[in-house]
Amino acid sequence: MNEAQNPSEANHPNPGRISLVGIGPGSVEHMTLRARAAIAEADVVIGYVTYIKLVADLLEGKEIVRKGMTEELDRAVSALEQARLGKKVALISSGDAGVYGMAGPTYEVLFQAGWTPDDPVQLEIVPGASAINACASRVGAPLTHDFCSISLSDLLTPWPTIARRLDAAAAADFVVALYNPKSGRRTRQIVEAQRLFLRHRRPDTPVAVVKSAYRRRERIEFTTLDRMSECEIGMLSTVLIGNSNTVIQHGLMVTPRGYANKYDLSEGGETRAGERPGRSLSTGLLGWLEGLQADHAAGDSIEVLAARHRLPPDYIRATLSEALEDEPVEAATEEAA
Amino acid sequence: MNEAQNPSEANHPNPGRISLVGIGPGSVEHMTLRARAAIAEADVVIGYVTYIKLVADLLEGKEIVRKGMTEELDRAVSALEQARLGKKVALISSGDAGVYGMAGPTYEVLFQAGWTPDDPVQLEIVPGASAINACASRVGAPLTHDFCSISLSDLLTPWPTIARRLDAAAAADFVVALYNPKSGRRTRQIVEAQRLFLRHRRPDTPVAVVKSAYRRRERIEFTTLDRMSECEIGMLSTVLIGNSNTVIQHGLMVTPRGYANKYDLSEGGETRAGERPGRSLSTGLLGWLEGLQADHAAGDSIEVLAARHRLPPDYIRATLSEALEDEPVEAATEEAA
Repeated sequence: MNEAQNPSEANHPNPGRISLVGIGPGSVEHMTLRARAAIAEADVVIGYVTYIKLVADLLEGKEIVRKGMTEELDRAVSALEQARLGKKVALISSGDAGVYGMAGPTYEVLFQAGWTPDDPVQLEIVPGASAINACASRVGAPLTHDFCSISLSDLLTPWPTIARRLDAAAAADFVVALYNPKSGRRTRQIVEAQRLFLRHRRPDTPVAVVKSAYRRRERIEFTTLDRMSECEIGMLSTVLIGNSNTVIQHGLMVTPRGYANKYDLSEGGETRAGERPGRSLSTGLLGWLEGLQADHAAGDSIEVLAARHRLPPDYIRATLSEALEDEPVEAATEEAA
Repeated sequence: MNEAQNPSEANHPNPGRISLVGIGPGSVEHMTLRARAAIAEADVVIGYVTYIKLVADLLEGKEIVRKGMTEELDRAVSALEQARLGKKVALISSGDAGVYGMAGPTYEVLFQAGWTPDDPVQLEIVPGASAINACASRVGAPLTHDFCSISLSDLLTPWPTIARRLDAAAAADFVVALYNPKSGRRTRQIVEAQRLFLRHRRPDTPVAVVKSAYRRRERIEFTTLDRMSECEIGMLSTVLIGNSNTVIQHGLMVTPRGYANKYDLSEGGETRAGERPGRSLSTGLLGWLEGLQADHAAGDSIEVLAARHRLPPDYIRATLSEALEDEPVEAATEEAA
């Protein structure tokens, strides 16, 4: 033993570690190398039975703690206890450990117990593909544009908070993934989500219901927003709602990235008039600001401009009050020539 | 050759394949087994130089096509041409291939070229951890609650669309990841994003700027919303903005999942009065609806209720007009006993 060691290490000659491992969708081949290594290195593996079975080949000689559904805090406490004994603990989550996963509760429990990053017990989070990524890859390419993830579970979140997020995501035309859409007890949440979405979105907005992506009982159902709540949706389902441009074509759900805004895709990909390859759209921030200033100078009021662009009047006012600095449009046009 | 073969297979005795491979954050150990296998099986590998270097050990004897930044459509066309010759093509994206990645443009190009899922050329998407997951795992546990991903790039998206999403995400208290926050040319977008967020969020809302997660030049900076635009932000940065409950504690950014709504964490985890373990909160959907009906019966108008819960009046009216069916609160209380 080296006397220069810091005292906490001296008290824990073999400091433990907690690895929060996201194993991805739940097939061995979609786990990362690090996820498998963290499990292989562990003395103790904690997780749901289903996920533990997936890594059966790595478990020889390890202590296994199988846990049920509503024991997140218990699992974190138990992981810390084991790590304090100098053990390496792997705590398994499906998908990404940080997305509605064990990372949050574990930090909450560790902070409560006085743990800090200087503690001899080290914490590692191993990221993985979350359900939104796995489900998207099975239905086509729905996440090519801005998206939200919203959990419909009200076990820890008041309904008005969830409802405000559904309303905002629907209004602002996000692609949306609904996690925990329905359970035996929670059946009305998906009906309310549909009601909130239909206030802003077309009834024929494409929807995909994906159950158990990459697992044996995988099931994909395409539908539309107005029929969403009639689908077979359960605890293992993720619901993907497209934005106003999303299409289902040849049985694939695809959200265009926006190339059609800049290129004429039917004419061999020629750039549209006024647009430049590799540069902001003419309706991008600076082009838009220039147009806004011109319209305002021509007599359009703040309120008229706010209504036209569906943005708050005080935002329009604030941004109009600042000079255009970067890349004035005239100079940029010359540059691109 | 079997005469029962379908005609398209007969014309392509050795049908090609396109694999859109998400390699995760950009370190070998965070790639999935399937990502590495799809590259190992490929005849042709297409991607940015940086990502191709990462898989150098798998490339012996393969054709390599290194591409630049703004050539997504070219890359997809080139992948299809090669696959039509019967080759296996791996098209590499960082993060998840579906999130602002190559999956969308590839489907757009393939559909344009008359490809359908019955084509002899097969398409596979290999999901991976996206930047939001990788960055989150390095800063703590910010994604424990509902989140949005918004790209600030206006190369293909008009600014008002982006601004409306920023405004909605800020108002509805999502955790938000900003992709493509800034480039040499695009410097004002992050200032405008900050302006929109400050209309709804406290100036001291925690923000993390993560550059090159899991790569050699990884850099993490914590700041607050009011100072966000002063940070060093570039093409390789992802910006994470917390929700109203997110904290930075001991150098870690953590968004509570909401256990404190149900449990008294300082008192050994006792369930709070009126709450039940494993069940919806008393302010969950059914409890909330019951309260809403009681308040309405007691004389509160639709408008008063809408203002109280910050939800649209017509939503309040619609949901009040439907009877409570599932799990009436009285019965549920007995069940839980």
